[in-house]
Order: sequence, then structure tokens, then C-alpha cells
Amino acid sequence: MVEQTLAPGARVGIVGGGQLGRMLALAAARLGLSSHIFTDRDDDPAIEVAGRACVAPYDDERALARFVAEVDVVTYEFENIPAGAAAFLDSQKPVRPSPRVLALTQDRLIEKNFIAGLGIEVAPYAQVDDAGALARAVAQIGRPSILKTRRFGYDGKGQTLIRLGSDLATAFRSLGGQPSILEGFIPFRCEVSVVAARGLDGDFVAWDIGRNVHEHHILATTTVPAGLSAELAARAVDKARRIAEALDYVGVLAVEMFVVEDSAGLRLLVNEIAPRVHNSGHWTLDGSVTSQFEQHLRAVCGFPLGSARAHGPLEMRNLIGDDIFRWRELLARKGACLHLYGKSEPRPGRKMGHVTLLRDAEN
Amino acid sequence: MVEQTLAPGARVGIVGGGQLGRMLALAAARLGLSSHIFTDRDDDPAIEVAGRACVAPYDDERALARFVAEVDVVTYEFENIPAGAAAFLDSQKPVRPSPRVLALTQDRLIEKNFIAGLGIEVAPYAQVDDAGALARAVAQIGRPSILKTRRFGYDGKGQTLIRLGSDLATAFRSLGGQPSILEGFIPFRCEVSVVAARGLDGDFVAWDIGRNVHEHHILATTTVPAGLSAELAARAVDKARRIAEALDYVGVLAVEMFVVEDSAGLRLLVNEIAPRVHNSGHWTLDGSVTSQFEQHLRAVCGFPLGSARAHGPLEMRNLIGDDIFRWRELLARKGACLHLYGKSEPRPGRKMGHVTLLRDAEN
Repeated sequence: MVEQTLAPGARVGIVGGGQLGRMLALAAARLGLSSHIFTDRDDDPAIEVAGRACVAPYDDERALARFVAEVDVVTYEFENIPAGAAAFLDSQKPVRPSPRVLALTQDRLIEKNFIAGLGIEVAPYAQVDDAGALARAVAQIGRPSILKTRRFGYDGKGQTLIRLGSDLATAFRSLGGQPSILEGFIPFRCEVSVVAARGLDGDFVAWDIGRNVHEHHILATTTVPAGLSAELAARAVDKARRIAEALDYVGVLAVEMFVVEDSAGLRLLVNEIAPRVHNSGHWTLDGSVTSQFEQHLRAVCGFPLGSARAHGPLEMRNLIGDDIFRWRELLARKGACLHLYGKSEPRPGRKMGHVTLLRDAEN
Repeated sequence: MVEQTLAPGARVGIVGGGQLGRMLALAAARLGLSSHIFTDRDDDPAIEVAGRACVAPYDDERALARFVAEVDVVTYEFENIPAGAAAFLDSQKPVRPSPRVLALTQDRLIEKNFIAGLGIEVAPYAQVDDAGALARAVAQIGRPSILKTRRFGYDGKGQTLIRLGSDLATAFRSLGGQPSILEGFIPFRCEVSVVAARGLDGDFVAWDIGRNVHEHHILATTTVPAGLSAELAARAVDKARRIAEALDYVGVLAVEMFVVEDSAGLRLLVNEIAPRVHNSGHWTLDGSVTSQFEQHLRAVCGFPLGSARAHGPLEMRNLIGDDIFRWRELLARKGACLHLYGKSEPRPGRKMGHVTLLRDAEN
């Protein structure tokens, strides 16, 4: 019999050893929890701060068996865990959020169908299984539009823009001819994300909404408050809550939305669900009573959720690649809270750290 | 040539593996620093969250040599490090704060003489080397007064109250006949502490002053703000700054003071210097832009100091012994930030964790 609700001293298994796993492990230590990282890379930054780590391919069932035997609950820092691995772990210990959520968010088509099925507006989309289907989808949705693989895309990988004059067969081949979807290109006013948590008891707590700016398809900054009206913000949170409830979700999730404007006013289109702690919630480490990392652990362990109150206006900036060399200047900046992930090589596009600028503390 | 100023990626050696070492190691990870714990106990709570640990007696020079070879700077979480060990480490790598500070704060008499020598008021005190000296000291200072061993006292250990009628020979023997000092008993209005940091460049930053309440000689609560007038608070910070400058101090220090009232108004008597992060500064983890743990690491690594701005009024409560069983109730409390230290046995008097109650977040 596996307990639904754990206690301090329990060991949390975290699948994935990147910066999200690292910050989860650090938050676990605050709560008196131990952590155990499962990753396929022996230089992953979470390993150094976790009590234990298991380095093996994600589909190595013997390694997964050793890992899961040593933990009380399993969670993850990324959604592209092989379905077989998730199912195996779930047969041994509670996996939170559930593998059902993983399966849904691993496939853009299934995810869009799910969101639209809740009556929540998304960008126009169509299933694209072959080049012929792409031509029909473009005829239906128009240009510009974005062709995305259904699976394994992130940070702009696995997608291509269909412009006026783009050759459709070339575009489809450029993504490897994989099952894809075509999405209408949305001329949005801004992108926002609702980062929220749902507890094992169904309690739901959302942080203040962040406004996100991406550069080269990678999140560059998150600004809080997002500048939405109270009414629009409440609608955004309500969408996230409906999604979380429909999934019987346990843990932190992020729901990315576009704010679009037309003659009828401002509308929200849900773009994507991330079933995990999210880059746009990193500001909660320094700018909120409870961080997203601690809140996620509270949820997956069956603990009560904490306050999501923000300490004041702020901006979170990612440090990508060479940005990390600005560390000293950032440390000297008043109100700047710096986080570095302990990665050795600052490759272009690699997330090396982030800094949160607390506006009230700048003077 | 050892660099004075380090960079992220450096490894910080921390002597001592208790909760202070644990919270230092967690703060090191945030800054992209690695940590290496030296402790004589293999179940110490810092070990699990540090990249490396060396478990050996504090005077094991071969173990110290291995430890110091693997780090870029050495700091410590407690002041009772053997002088020989500190000197050896200092011969290999920078030890911050310096062993000179350790030597001074390890001996109550030397510490009092130093503070008084700066023209900073302390409680009346006298050197007591034998029972005869105790009789002369009591004649001079009066009763009630407190006999304390010069070395290795903490949390009320190594001290005894001399009341009207106390037998002096018995009192002296009860402390093992060690070199001691007699201190006048101060009927204080309150106890406060200034927790502050001094950087390698001489920059000095103090947090808001905390008012401390002890129970059974162990810190029970710290309340911020302390309720001092701005003028008295400025005088308290000035005393801490003068002490830090006179020591050419690098790192976080805590200066405990009594607030006493007489016909001339309120006065401050310095009681004790702690050359390290301090329990009365734990609130900075959740209640301030920069925590004392990060600030200490910034200082010892030669980084710029961070903002000490507080987020609002708060109370920090220690969880001693069985208090830890209240964890679920505390997690459910709005505005409560819980920290558990990962210790297995909740023995009476053992610090198991703490909780910071952020008053602005309670409703």
C-alpha cells in the first residue's frame, strides 16, 4: 500500500536532471525532503544538489526499477518522458502529475483537441499527416501559419513558418515528414502565462500572471504584473483552473496564452500547457511567498499549498549562452536576485541562469 | 597564487555540516557555486545537499589537507574550530572570516576586551581563573551575575547563574574549574541582534534589526521590525559596523545586544559576536531580497553584496524537538514559509527547522 500523502523525510524521485530538476531538488531540501534524480546525462546540473542520482537511458527498465524502489513519489521536470517509462514508474509508485497528463501534452494535436473540447479558445489548427493534408490545411487556415510536429518540439524546435510563397512539400519534409499540425499565426498583443498549482485535495492556487517575451523562440523575459485588466486576468486564471480540473491535475502547471485584440475587445487563446514547473514561473523563487518549485513538491507530496502572493513588481530575465558572463554586473545591481545553474559550457541558446529584478528594491 | 575574488563554478569549503552549513550549501547552488562540507559527523544534514563532503575529526590534518586542496575558499558554520585546523586551512587557501576572528570570538574574555576596547559598552565583566578570583569578581560585580566558561559555550551550556546565596566554590566547580568570566546580570528590556555583512571590498550591509526571545537559553523567535526607534536602530547598526571594520571582517556576522533602560533613556550593551550566519538571520531566506546565506557566500567569494531590503513585517520561530510534528499545520498557515533541516531524530532542544510568518501574506 503506497501512501497518498507523504511526510518530511520522504524521498521524491525527479525524472530529468536539468535546471528545473536542480531547483526542485533545492526546494525539496528546504522542506526536509530528499531527492533522487533520474537522468540520461551524467553532467546534469541537478545531480550535484540531490542526495541520489541514477544515470541511465530513460527507457532502461532495470535502472527505472532501482530508481523507483528508492523513492516515495515520482515527478518530472520535462514532458517528453517515454510513455513506457512513465507507465512502468506509475505501476510502482504514484507519478504526479499522472502519465495521462504526459500522454496528452506530448502530442500537440491531442492537447489542442482537449483544450478546445473544454470550450476554451485556441488558435485555428488542423491535423497534418502528409503533404496532401498540409495543402488542405493551408487552404483552410491560410498564411502565415506554423507547421509543428505533434511530438517532441520545444524552444522553436520542430516547427517551421508557412509564409506566402513557402513550398509546402519542402516545409513538410523539413520537419522529417512527421505527423504534424498546422496552426494559424496569431498576431497577438502579448503572450502571458498562468502558472498555478493544484493540490492532491483539489485546492487550486495561481500566481500573478506574467507577460512573456520570447527571442529566437526562447523565453527572454517574464514581467509581473502582466498589465492585464483584473477582469481579463480572472478569465485567464479561470481557463487554467478548468484545464487543471479536467485533468485532475496534481502539481504546478503553466498555461501559455495569447492576448489578441479585435473589434470585440481583448480575447485569450490558449497556446500550450506545460505539465511541470515552467521558466515563466522562475520569478516566484524571489518574488513570491512560495516558489513554484516548493509548491510543486507540496502538491505531489499531498501537502497543503502555500501562498502565491507576490512581493511586488518584477522582471525575470533568462541568461542565455554568453549572458552568463554578466554575472558580476548583475550581482552588483540593487534588487537583482541571480540564479546560475552550474552548467559548465555556455553554448548559444543554452539556459545558463536567470535573474529576477525586484522593482521595489532597486532604489 | 590564490585568487582573492572567485567566480561562479568555484568550490566553497564549509567547515561544519549542521543546518547552517546546509543552508549555506543550498545558497551556494543558487549562485552556481559548488560546496564541500567538512564535518566530523556522517549523518550531518549539510552532506546530502553538498556536491562533496569529507567526514573526519576536525583536527585530522590529512583529511583537512584533502579537503582544502579541493576548494577555492574556506568558510565555516560554527566558531569552535580548533585553532590548529583553522591555521592549517589558512596556510593553504583563504579562510573567511579570518582565523584571527575565530580566535577572538572563541574566548569570551578576549571578545569582551576587544569590544570594550572599541569604546562599545558591554555588561560589567571580570576574569575568573580560580575560585578566589570568583569571590573577588562577585564582590565587584554583585549578584545576580552569570559565570561563563571563556571557551566552548553555546545555547546556555557552560554557564551558571550566581544568585544571592549561591555557593561560589560549587558554582566554579560546576563548570569544571575552567577559565571563566563573570558577567553582570542585565535586566534588559529586550534582546536584539544586528545581522550584517561586510564584503571583501569593505562594503557593509545590515538587515533590519530583529528582536529575539530565548526560551531555555535557545532562540525561540525573532521579530522584524524589532520596534526600536530609528535613532536607536542606527546606533545598533553603527556598533556592528565598527566591530566588523575593526576585525577587517569578511562575511556575515551577528552582533547580539541588550536594550536596557535607565534614567538616561535606552542604551545598548553588546552581548556577543557570532562570526557566521546566525539563527536570528534565518528570516532573511523568505523575508528579504538577499538571504544571509547568499550574502555570506557573496562576501567570502569577493562578489558584490546584495540588497538587504525586507519584504515586510515577520516573525521567525524555531522548531525545537517535537515542534517539528506541527509541520502540516504550519504548511497550511497562510504566509508561513517552512524550513526543515532533514534531521532524523527530534531530540529535546534540537533545532529541527524554523518557520517564518510573513505578516503581509497572512490574509
